[in-house]
Amino acid sequence: MGASGMKNLFDDLSNMLPEELVTVLAENQHVRIERIVSTGHGSPEGFWYDQDEAEWVVVLKGEAKLRFEDDDEPATMRPGDHVLIPAHRKHRVEWTTPNEPTVWLAVFMGDDLD
Amino acid sequence: MGASGMKNLFDDLSNMLPEELVTVLAENQHVRIERIVSTGHGSPEGFWYDQDEAEWVVVLKGEAKLRFEDDDEPATMRPGDHVLIPAHRKHRVEWTTPNEPTVWLAVFMGDDLD
Repeated sequence: MGASGMKNLFDDLSNMLPEELVTVLAENQHVRIERIVSTGHGSPEGFWYDQDEAEWVVVLKGEAKLRFEDDDEPATMRPGDHVLIPAHRKHRVEWTTPNEPTVWLAVFMGDDLD
Repeated sequence: MGASGMKNLFDDLSNMLPEELVTVLAENQHVRIERIVSTGHGSPEGFWYDQDEAEWVVVLKGEAKLRFEDDDEPATMRPGDHVLIPAHRKHRVEWTTPNEPTVWLAVFMGDDLD
């Protein structure tokens, strides 16, 4: 990191993590920006995220299958693919690439957290 | 766009834009997520951004030189490089790659916009 405070999203990637690696990049009382690194991780069988915050998420490296409870088929996400997940739209990660890290950038947007 | 609402950050890139192309990807009253495409654009001579909102910004394609008023040298940003710009930290874009689009993702975070 130089004087400017620059960091890189693709630094410190591992091919084999025991769990997803979540790093908070910036946050205030209304928004949280996270880098999430998955190495073959998916959500536990039968688990659905049901979040109070809206989440805008993009895949920047690797590949993932994101399933919405109200869709029959998972959506494949490749680098650059992004989607806005409204609060309480249930979803799960079915799959991420096992042979390379999948890097997600997620922005959690609380409507009224204070 | 399928049923999932998926779009891609690298779609619809042009090599020659008359001005920077700004697309709002998601927003609420506290946060605004923008894709910015530059094709050789920089800030006008002598111009400094002086923003009421904090801005977290990453370069995802191309290359840029970001200058802070309180730094002597511009910071070169390559894909994955990100930085948090506090509100009112004056900055300008000195340069972006002229021969390929530079794609930025910016998250503007208002502390208290309501």
